[in-house]
Amino acid sequence: MEENIITIEKIKYEDWKKVEIKIGKILTVEKIEKSEKLLKLSVDFAEAAGPRQIVSGIAKYFPDISVLVNKKCAFVTNLEPKPLMGLESNGMILAVGGGEEPFSIFEVRDEIKTGTQAK
Amino acid sequence: MEENIITIEKIKYEDWKKVEIKIGKILTVEKIEKSEKLLKLSVDFAEAAGPRQIVSGIAKYFPDISVLVNKKCAFVTNLEPKPLMGLESNGMILAVGGGEEPFSIFEVRDEIKTGTQAK
Repeated sequence: MEENIITIEKIKYEDWKKVEIKIGKILTVEKIEKSEKLLKLSVDFAEAAGPRQIVSGIAKYFPDISVLVNKKCAFVTNLEPKPLMGLESNGMILAVGGGEEPFSIFEVRDEIKTGTQAK
Repeated sequence: MEENIITIEKIKYEDWKKVEIKIGKILTVEKIEKSEKLLKLSVDFAEAAGPRQIVSGIAKYFPDISVLVNKKCAFVTNLEPKPLMGLESNGMILAVGGGEEPFSIFEVRDEIKTGTQAK
């Protein structure tokens, strides 16, 4: 019950609206040399600029990285770009669990359009 | 391609961390009288205070409301409580699509623990 002791501050609806969560379609996945944790994803958000490179610490949950290809799932898409192992990450995959607990990304059915924003 | 023209501001990681997204287990679902849009959910987040009442405008996507019972899915859990049709809502179900587009909540496997926080 540890999580019930920590109380996070309440936020206003406007604070929530600053966060952009969109459905991206994972096009390619590569292991990153010298990293056991990180995967390099190319993710389509139906943006004119083309797919984004997203670096994500989810390698241990996907021993077979090919299962990620063509999945549509949720990403935070308006975080400031962040360098990870020398690679720029332009978004963050949304996930729950991990460590010793079961892990999950937020996958949606293929009929949900790439680039759709969560609300 | 309309969503590509609107550019939302970038946020810092600390802004993202202010938002609490947790997995809740839907215990009960009721239609709300005189409302075609709203459903009243009771949702367990493994909190000492017990399940929360969450009012959500998802009725049109669930003609059979019983399919929602026992689902585990993502909610924003630290928004200020909001009254809807006279009922206090203590959270917001996270969803994509809707209107004329396909709609989805963010469901996870049952093995993901109730109350787990997204990151």
